Amino acid sequence: MNPPIAQLCAALDYRFQTPERLEDALTHRSASARNNERLEFLGDALLNLIVAEYLFQRYPKASEGELSRLRASLVKGETLADLARELKLGDWLRLGPGELKSGGYRRESILSDALEAVIGAIYLDSDFSTCRNWVLHLYRDWLTRLSSANELKDPKTRLQEHLQADQRPLPTYNVLEIRGEPHAQSFIVECVVTGLRTTAIGSSRRKAEQESARLMLERIA
Amino acid sequence: MNPPIAQLCAALDYRFQTPERLEDALTHRSASARNNERLEFLGDALLNLIVAEYLFQRYPKASEGELSRLRASLVKGETLADLARELKLGDWLRLGPGELKSGGYRRESILSDALEAVIGAIYLDSDFSTCRNWVLHLYRDWLTRLSSANELKDPKTRLQEHLQADQRPLPTYNVLEIRGEPHAQSFIVECVVTGLRTTAIGSSRRKAEQESARLMLERIA
Repeated sequence: MNPPIAQLCAALDYRFQTPERLEDALTHRSASARNNERLEFLGDALLNLIVAEYLFQRYPKASEGELSRLRASLVKGETLADLARELKLGDWLRLGPGELKSGGYRRESILSDALEAVIGAIYLDSDFSTCRNWVLHLYRDWLTRLSSANELKDPKTRLQEHLQADQRPLPTYNVLEIRGEPHAQSFIVECVVTGLRTTAIGSSRRKAEQESARLMLERIA
Repeated sequence: MNPPIAQLCAALDYRFQTPERLEDALTHRSASARNNERLEFLGDALLNLIVAEYLFQRYPKASEGELSRLRASLVKGETLADLARELKLGDWLRLGPGELKSGGYRRESILSDALEAVIGAIYLDSDFSTCRNWVLHLYRDWLTRLSSANELKDPKTRLQEHLQADQRPLPTYNVLEIRGEPHAQSFIVECVVTGLRTTAIGSSRRKAEQESARLMLERIA
């Protein structure tokens, strides 16, 4: 038995005009053909825009790449699942018998999808401005924690600065292999720092280099 | 020399409170450090949401996958570049000397990025509702052309229906290879129809199957 939905409304600090919208948002596809997948599609787009606009206004000097990276860290499933856990959203999920048995109410993707669906439901129940305020309030701790310093820098920049601070030679990046058809290539790149090597795969050379630098930082920093 | 910007405002059917926003939206990164990349980031998120909400409301029975596919067809670079050409946006672009020489004002990615930036600029200059109306008006011909039939169906479904209509045996899909680390896997899948084979690579088995079905359809349909 789920606890009464009024408790969740209190936790969300939002009163639904049409409570069925919230019920839909909490219904996983394993429980019903009428589920939260469409609301999740809408909520995902809302979240992306609301966070994009917030970052755009807050960081007037940040490049498009920096804004994208910051947004990615805020809207990824892991962050959303953390927020969903703070709201105890899992207690109100409607799951099918299989997902219930396997503890689906704790699973990251189910929690993050449900939270996106709640965002979509609040939008449909109110308007863009109300939904935006709700999302920014939900994220308040994450947004205050965002430092304008390191998170704005990509792994290659951070690696370079880390090595320079230690007066060590700079890294080199080598493309080891390019796989796949021209429209769906994967790049395998290594990052070399005085004998140490990390390799990474990515859908572009730049992405693979960044990932190899991130792995190198984890190893040496 | 670009034609006067007032002509573009007339073509856009939008009068900017702050015309510098439109100028920024038309400035490619090859022309100035103050360029349209940040506005493009914002405009991309706006476009995704506006189209998502439109499709959500118009197709109440469509699945999340169908909505995603429809949206992808509307917001892809090719579609945006077509719309930018209708507006003759290329005539007002500010490009660096290299891009000018190589005809950058005709290039698809430059046109589509600039149009996204214009969407971002209109939003900043007005509000969400004005921007949404502008985008839906821009897309009016595309939206009336959207049939609710075939575009809602994925390639595997269309291939199956095509074969059934011809009373031919149904396709089989085989995973030939899984590459890469668990967090960045690529799937290579073949689609087999009475001796014909197409293979495709994708970041999930489902995506690779759909792509192999699409290739098969191109071959036999």
